[in-house]
Amino acid sequence: MNLIVAQSGGPTSVINSSLAGVIDSGIDNDFDKIFVSMNGIEGIINDNIRLVDSEIFAKDNMAKALKARPASILGSCRYKLDSDFDSPVYEKIFRNLAKNEISLFVYIGGNDSMDTVTKLNKYISYKNIEGINVIGCPKTIDNDLEGMDHSPGFGSSAKYINASLRALRCDVDIYDLESVTFVEIMGRHAGWLAASSLLANYNYKKDLVNLIYVPENKTSIDQILNDIRNELKNEKNLLVAIAEGFRDVDGVLSEEVFTNTKDGFNHPVVSGVGQRLADLVRERLDIKSRAVELNIAQRSNIIISGTDSKEAYNLGYRAVDLGMENTNLVPVLRRKDREKYEVYYTQVRPDEIANKEMKIPQEWLKDMKTLEENMYKYALPLIEGEVEQVFEKGMPVFVDICDFTKEI
Amino acid sequence: MNLIVAQSGGPTSVINSSLAGVIDSGIDNDFDKIFVSMNGIEGIINDNIRLVDSEIFAKDNMAKALKARPASILGSCRYKLDSDFDSPVYEKIFRNLAKNEISLFVYIGGNDSMDTVTKLNKYISYKNIEGINVIGCPKTIDNDLEGMDHSPGFGSSAKYINASLRALRCDVDIYDLESVTFVEIMGRHAGWLAASSLLANYNYKKDLVNLIYVPENKTSIDQILNDIRNELKNEKNLLVAIAEGFRDVDGVLSEEVFTNTKDGFNHPVVSGVGQRLADLVRERLDIKSRAVELNIAQRSNIIISGTDSKEAYNLGYRAVDLGMENTNLVPVLRRKDREKYEVYYTQVRPDEIANKEMKIPQEWLKDMKTLEENMYKYALPLIEGEVEQVFEKGMPVFVDICDFTKEI
Repeated sequence: MNLIVAQSGGPTSVINSSLAGVIDSGIDNDFDKIFVSMNGIEGIINDNIRLVDSEIFAKDNMAKALKARPASILGSCRYKLDSDFDSPVYEKIFRNLAKNEISLFVYIGGNDSMDTVTKLNKYISYKNIEGINVIGCPKTIDNDLEGMDHSPGFGSSAKYINASLRALRCDVDIYDLESVTFVEIMGRHAGWLAASSLLANYNYKKDLVNLIYVPENKTSIDQILNDIRNELKNEKNLLVAIAEGFRDVDGVLSEEVFTNTKDGFNHPVVSGVGQRLADLVRERLDIKSRAVELNIAQRSNIIISGTDSKEAYNLGYRAVDLGMENTNLVPVLRRKDREKYEVYYTQVRPDEIANKEMKIPQEWLKDMKTLEENMYKYALPLIEGEVEQVFEKGMPVFVDICDFTKEI
Repeated sequence: MNLIVAQSGGPTSVINSSLAGVIDSGIDNDFDKIFVSMNGIEGIINDNIRLVDSEIFAKDNMAKALKARPASILGSCRYKLDSDFDSPVYEKIFRNLAKNEISLFVYIGGNDSMDTVTKLNKYISYKNIEGINVIGCPKTIDNDLEGMDHSPGFGSSAKYINASLRALRCDVDIYDLESVTFVEIMGRHAGWLAASSLLANYNYKKDLVNLIYVPENKTSIDQILNDIRNELKNEKNLLVAIAEGFRDVDGVLSEEVFTNTKDGFNHPVVSGVGQRLADLVRERLDIKSRAVELNIAQRSNIIISGTDSKEAYNLGYRAVDLGMENTNLVPVLRRKDREKYEVYYTQVRPDEIANKEMKIPQEWLKDMKTLEENMYKYALPLIEGEVEQVFEKGMPVFVDICDFTKEI
């Protein structure tokens, strides 16, 4: 009875915490062998799998090392499984799983990966395959997964964003002249990460983030410029958080503008909405303005939330437990109480997560104060605690896949 | 007998370590009052100065707190002093210094600030002003100050760059397809910071940074694309470090291309050379390519080198000692030995620093291996050690100017 685990979709800073939970649970549940699949489901398809050395894993405290190692250590993929069960890929997958005597396959991923999990389970039912179970374990920095209080990965991104903004504010404030700095934050459809930047205002003497625009906002460019003019009456240097997916109601920031714009090499300009708004502020308000993109550091960083890491580990651990019970339910976190942070673990059907998106509730978006208060209650506990990083010669050192697995 | 200190130019992550050294030395040298000037010399001109509470400073270990606080806590300015000594600004400065019975003014800054220091001292000689001394204390992330082994501020930026690249590499490697990621690093004329990215290769199993281009390089776009094609034979996912000031020999990346390029709003595109090269790689090699700008986090970050912080503190401390000896010499660091890292403190005339730029030696630029080996010896010791950050509610907390100074 063997176990296999894989990681899929975009990375997070705690996706390896979930991996650690899966492996520890696999050891505790007495699996004979624990395999890892490289590059998501592609590793199973192409027989690119490795064997975990359980003894070394426990002895060398690899779980702790994995918690400090950002981004999918097993690699990832964006593979979309065919909907047609006659596709030869299904036979290949289940032949390779059978060859390695796998009874449980844990897939750590976002809503696309839950779609894969759902399809594999449907195929199992359809073909009456026995003795194998496929279970999902959630992750995403975007916090847009349905069926749970929050997604593992979100807290660490939010923590990185807040730490960056606190340092950025130190920089923004140094000159005694008016300026507007747009900080572009990940989130194409949901503004959770951008909204998490409001946590930086907590216990700060003035507003650290002065204005915020998320995809859920319906706002015009004129309104934004008006907001900026008003804020500049109170404060010289503004920090404006902007989700990469924010678009104004009039379509000035529409997709066409982005994709029809050519740079000097006759290519579409790919830089984002923050830069566009900075250009507009300079042009229309004649105020020094710039944009800062927090970019992929948001999903792969050494600043990791202790709470997030612990929860991601627990979900990985629980995924194996649930898999042993032969359910296909996905482990999730829920909150007991909105006032005091306390979570409990439960489970949902993968199709309750797949291909859906959780947005910021409309009632939170009434005004910035309302959003800020709701985000304090909701997200402040999620960024608490720090995962310790080991430095050697001044640089962080991370565990390597070869440190606890070997080729088979 | 009173002391005043100010910060000027671009921020660094250890410019407040130097401030801590100045204040501690001011206390130890028995100054009656220690003032800080807000926004560089502008604070003296406009009488915007504050008084340090020496008792609280010592009691609450404010030196330690300042070492963890990135970016100029006193604010900064880009004020260029008039060369004409008849300008009324000189009278204003010295009237305000006299009013507050200042005998020593320490100016922490880069080569522009050393120009200010030089001018003020010339004015003192010219006007035969007695009982006042002006002394500079160096800082810059760019490491381009002449007269010293390295600049305080450089080590922390290099440390941040290396920590970021280690995390970025975890992200870059996750997909099993060819890709080129350009990382744009600060440095308009000198490539020190970009070259420091090679430290990330130290003790890493393969090359973490695969290619590097600095302003000191004379290279064509064709050569770069060739280098990339060659590297892709050994490795799928390339990380290419590029200094923002790098320009190719044929002028494809010339200033005109940048400034004549208009975006959708008919503005010059300000995004940088990394994005241009990523566009070229996509167009000419048909390979997935993107650019990441490390941006202002390089000069204001919570990842601070312990070595850099200690040295910056020592230079600040020494600046006051030198000022007491009534010299105008600027404290600097030199290295005793290239093999074993050991520094000594000495001093140079401010005009040996002002308006000059130290570049990477040409002999280091023969090839990447030579540059890498030289950078290991030169810069690896500078990023060693970590300055401890205090987190509350999951966020770093910084000391505030009001915590140890008061209005006068």
